[in-house]
Amino acid sequence: VGDTLPDIVDAIKSLCIRNKILITTGGLGPTDDDLTRKALADAAGVELVMSDKAAEMVKERFKQINYPMAEKNLVQALIPKGSDVLYNPMGTAPGIHVQISGCDCYSFPGVPREMKPMLHQHVLSHLKNENYICIKEMKLWGFGESNIGSTLSDLMVRDRNPDVGTRVDDSVITVRVNVSAATSEEAEALAENDCKEIYSRLGQYIFGEGKDSLASAAINLLKNKNKTIATAESCTGGLLGKLITDISGSSAVFREGFITYCNEAKQKHLGVPEKLFAEHGAVSEPVARAMAEGVMQKTGADYGIGITGIAGPDGGTEQKPAGRVHIAVCSKEKTLHEEKNFASDRDGNRVRAANHALGMLIRMLKD
Amino acid sequence: VGDTLPDIVDAIKSLCIRNKILITTGGLGPTDDDLTRKALADAAGVELVMSDKAAEMVKERFKQINYPMAEKNLVQALIPKGSDVLYNPMGTAPGIHVQISGCDCYSFPGVPREMKPMLHQHVLSHLKNENYICIKEMKLWGFGESNIGSTLSDLMVRDRNPDVGTRVDDSVITVRVNVSAATSEEAEALAENDCKEIYSRLGQYIFGEGKDSLASAAINLLKNKNKTIATAESCTGGLLGKLITDISGSSAVFREGFITYCNEAKQKHLGVPEKLFAEHGAVSEPVARAMAEGVMQKTGADYGIGITGIAGPDGGTEQKPAGRVHIAVCSKEKTLHEEKNFASDRDGNRVRAANHALGMLIRMLKD
Repeated sequence: VGDTLPDIVDAIKSLCIRNKILITTGGLGPTDDDLTRKALADAAGVELVMSDKAAEMVKERFKQINYPMAEKNLVQALIPKGSDVLYNPMGTAPGIHVQISGCDCYSFPGVPREMKPMLHQHVLSHLKNENYICIKEMKLWGFGESNIGSTLSDLMVRDRNPDVGTRVDDSVITVRVNVSAATSEEAEALAENDCKEIYSRLGQYIFGEGKDSLASAAINLLKNKNKTIATAESCTGGLLGKLITDISGSSAVFREGFITYCNEAKQKHLGVPEKLFAEHGAVSEPVARAMAEGVMQKTGADYGIGITGIAGPDGGTEQKPAGRVHIAVCSKEKTLHEEKNFASDRDGNRVRAANHALGMLIRMLKD
Repeated sequence: VGDTLPDIVDAIKSLCIRNKILITTGGLGPTDDDLTRKALADAAGVELVMSDKAAEMVKERFKQINYPMAEKNLVQALIPKGSDVLYNPMGTAPGIHVQISGCDCYSFPGVPREMKPMLHQHVLSHLKNENYICIKEMKLWGFGESNIGSTLSDLMVRDRNPDVGTRVDDSVITVRVNVSAATSEEAEALAENDCKEIYSRLGQYIFGEGKDSLASAAINLLKNKNKTIATAESCTGGLLGKLITDISGSSAVFREGFITYCNEAKQKHLGVPEKLFAEHGAVSEPVARAMAEGVMQKTGADYGIGITGIAGPDGGTEQKPAGRVHIAVCSKEKTLHEEKNFASDRDGNRVRAANHALGMLIRMLKD
C-alpha cells in the first residue's frame, strides 16, 4: 500500500468489507510518516485518543532499555476511540485492535521481530479452523533439489492431499507436507503416512524437522554424545560461529573458535605449517585439513572444522575461481575433506560454505 | 498468488490487461510444483517448447558448479513458444520474457540472490522515467529514532517534495530523501539541498550513505588510516567477524578474531585475568575491557573490540537480564566502554551488540 493516508484508508476500508480479519504491519512508529494509527481511526470513522494503558506500555519499554523517552514517543499511545491496545513485548509501539465494518483489524509494528510474537499471541492462537490443517516439514542436506523431484514425484502431483512441496535455501532442502482434513486426527494420520514414506526414501539425508537448522541439528547430536566442536574460519570470517551460537544453549558444545583471515594467523593459532601455503596456497585441501586438525588440537575439542576459500567477488583466478571453498571436518579418528565450487555471490558462497561444513559434521556424527 | 495453475494464469492475465510490465518471481524450479512456465504459456495461449538456448544455459551452469545434472532439470529449458530466454548468472533457472496482451512479462527465479541481478539487467536498466526520481539515503548511528522525528519534523511533513522518511534496522537509522522532478538536474539539486540540511543538523551521527553499513564505514575509515582491527567475541559468537568479512576487501584491515565463548578461552587466548570472572562475572565492564585490550595486544592490531553479554533467552538474572551486553573498543591510547540493555530476542540482542561495537569503533576512528 502506498505510503499516503488516503491510500491506506482506502485499503483498510475495502479489505474490511470483504474479510473477517485484517492484519496491518508497519506505520506505528513515532515519526510523521507513521500513518497507520490515523488511517485506522479514519477508516473506523472515529477520532484518535490518548490511551493511558498504551502510554504506560511505551514508558515502561523505555525504562526497560534504560533510554530517555522523547515526548514524541507518546504519539505511539494514540489509538482510535473504542479500540484495544495490544502489548508489544519487543518494542515501543503497542499494537491496536479495532472493529471496522464487522472485520477484526489488528495493527502490528512492521519490524518482523516485534510483529511475529504479537501476530501469534493476538491472532493466530485464537483462530479456529473449520478445516484442520497439519503441516510437517523435513529438512534435508546433501541431496540435489532436482533429484528430490524425481524421488518424490508420485507424492508431489498437483491437487493431491497431502500437498507435498519442496524449497531450497542455501543448499538446505525443506520438504513440506501440508494436509487438510475434517479432524485433527485424520490430518495427523495422513501427514504421518507421507512423512514415513519420505523418510523411507530419503532418511539418510534428513537432519531435522520444522524449525531445525543444520546448526541446531549438529548441536543436538554433539550434546547427545557429550562432545565439543571448535571452528577455524577463513573465508566465512565468523559466520560458522555465528550460525552455531545462534542456537541458545550452544555453549554446552561450542567453547571457542578462531577467525584466521590471514595466513600468519592460521600458522600462529592453528599451527598450519608455513610450507603448505607456498606449496598449495591458502585455499587448498592440505590447509583446510591442517586448520580443522589444528583447531581441534589447540582447543582440546572433540571435533574440528576448517574452512578456507575465495568468498569473492574478487580474489578468484582461473584455477581457483571465486566460490571455490575447501572444507575439512575432523575427529580424533579421521578427517573428511570436500572441495566445492559454490559459484554464487559473496554472501551465497559464505553461507553455503558454513552450511556445508555443518552438513559434513552431521554426517560424521551420525556415522 | 495461490500455488495452483488456474490462480496463477488468472493473475497473469488480469494483470497483463492493466499494466505495461509484469514481473513474476518464483516457480521456475525443476519440480512439479514449479508452475510459472506452464502458467505463462497458458496465459499467452501458446504451448511450451524446449529452448536450445535455455538448455545450453542450464547445462553450462551445472558444469560450472561441478554437479551432475538430473534429466529433470531440462524442464527448466521449457519456455512459452515465441518467448525470449533471459540469462541467470546465479542459478540454473533461466528467466523468461514474453508479451501477453501488449504487456511485457518477465519471469525471474524466486531466490532473491538470483532474481535481483536479473531484475536489474533485464528490466530496471531499460526503464525510462517520465518523471526523474532521485533517492538519497543517509545512515545514522547513535541517535534515537523518535528524536530524529523532532529534529527533522519540518522536512518530514506529508506531501512535501522531497519526501523525507526514516526507518530503523537494529539501531541503524536510515534517513531517505526521495525527490521527483521534471529533470535529473532539478531532482539532484533538490535532494542535495535537503541532504546538506540534514548533515548540518545530524552530521556527527551520519556514518555513511546508500548501501553503506556500519561495517563498511568502519572498514573504510580503517583503510584510510592504514590501521587494523581484531575482534574478541563472546555472546555474538562470530557475528561481528561475519559482519566485517561480509565486506569484500575487509582482509586489508581485519586479519584475525577470537570467538571466546567460554571463560577459559578468554583467559587462554586473550589473557583476561581469572580473578575478573570471580570478582565481576564474565558479563562485566572489566572483562569487556580486558577482552578488547587483550585481543589488540595478542594480535598486534591497532584497535581491539571486546563483546561479552547475555544473548538470551536463557542465562539472565535480575541483576544481569538477557540482553545486557558490555562492549569495549580500544586503541593504543584509550579504551571506550558501554553497557547496554538491548531487551530484544537472542538474534536482536546479538545484532545490536555487534552493530553497537562497530558504531563505537567508528566514533573512535573519527575522533
